[in-house]
Amino acid sequence: MRTIGALIFPGFELLDLFGPMEMFGLLGDDYELHLIAEREGAVESGHKLSAMASLSIHEHCAFDILFVPGGKGTRREVENQALLDWLVAASKNAEFVLSVCTGSALLARAGLLDGRHATTNKAAFSWVESQGPRVLWERQARWVEDEHFITSSGVSAGMDMSLGAIARMHGMQRAKDVAQFCEYEWQQDPSWDPFAKIHGLV
Amino acid sequence: MRTIGALIFPGFELLDLFGPMEMFGLLGDDYELHLIAEREGAVESGHKLSAMASLSIHEHCAFDILFVPGGKGTRREVENQALLDWLVAASKNAEFVLSVCTGSALLARAGLLDGRHATTNKAAFSWVESQGPRVLWERQARWVEDEHFITSSGVSAGMDMSLGAIARMHGMQRAKDVAQFCEYEWQQDPSWDPFAKIHGLV
Repeated sequence: MRTIGALIFPGFELLDLFGPMEMFGLLGDDYELHLIAEREGAVESGHKLSAMASLSIHEHCAFDILFVPGGKGTRREVENQALLDWLVAASKNAEFVLSVCTGSALLARAGLLDGRHATTNKAAFSWVESQGPRVLWERQARWVEDEHFITSSGVSAGMDMSLGAIARMHGMQRAKDVAQFCEYEWQQDPSWDPFAKIHGLV
Repeated sequence: MRTIGALIFPGFELLDLFGPMEMFGLLGDDYELHLIAEREGAVESGHKLSAMASLSIHEHCAFDILFVPGGKGTRREVENQALLDWLVAASKNAEFVLSVCTGSALLARAGLLDGRHATTNKAAFSWVESQGPRVLWERQARWVEDEHFITSSGVSAGMDMSLGAIARMHGMQRAKDVAQFCEYEWQQDPSWDPFAKIHGLV
């Protein structure tokens, strides 16, 4: 059984978080999902609806998978040293570290992506890039894997990335089964990214 | 400004709910999103993670859009007469009634889909069908529109359906803009449904 610690903060993006949580949740008893925040309790998303953090970063930092969503709240959290320190500690314990959208800005500011290949969403690319000048940012990618760090492009890309991570951990058939249950047309190609062109990145 | 009342209940499916809420949330100040449940407070999803209901069905039933997700909790809620009565009342006030996945079983048991065309997810089709013998169930469809009732197929189909509803309400360009922000490859064809064949429905 693997544990997932999914970080949430005020202004997180709903689909960044819950798309991937749906995919991992469908693996059933093989996974235990947790939402973790600075304080336990309700945390308001960027679209106002709130999720419940059952754990606090001041008490827990050991998960098999560390998951970091994006959202407009990342603009504030990149200055939150306690949170960045926690990301460093939690990354050391994790078998995999996954981020969606501007979640990679948090990993970058924590120094975790230095010298690594990574991506982020294409609408906020230049801001995220500026948070990690030593990161090898990929301008066109649905998601990027660099050892145990897997970063994805914007919002919906987190679902494709998560299925890719599931395929890597549990085999292609398991990932396809999850996608089929969701009636989801999984984009399996991590290099597929028409949005890079739309935003003038290529 | 339009209000959305999204019903949640123990065992709701995460992506059924939060995929569509992401899409409507991206319409910005034009929409006010609410999660509503039998009681205010935390409601546990089928994958254990909890969302916060800020309203109770005993106090509110007037929303411009009534939204009903699916999930394994629907198997219990189809027997919940107070909730079915609330769906009837809330539907009368709503400009649109949207459901995802087995959420249509709740609408069907409330009698709201009698004589209407509707769909549901394909893995649980026969059970949902049995909840509404007078519903004109469509065995192959991504989503189905019958006047102001719009029902979608399983889990991820809710995102395509929501974008379709946004296109109907606000024009195609607005829907495309939302999809692009999410870096989402919107399936715009409501008749697209390879899952019907996989589950032997056609």
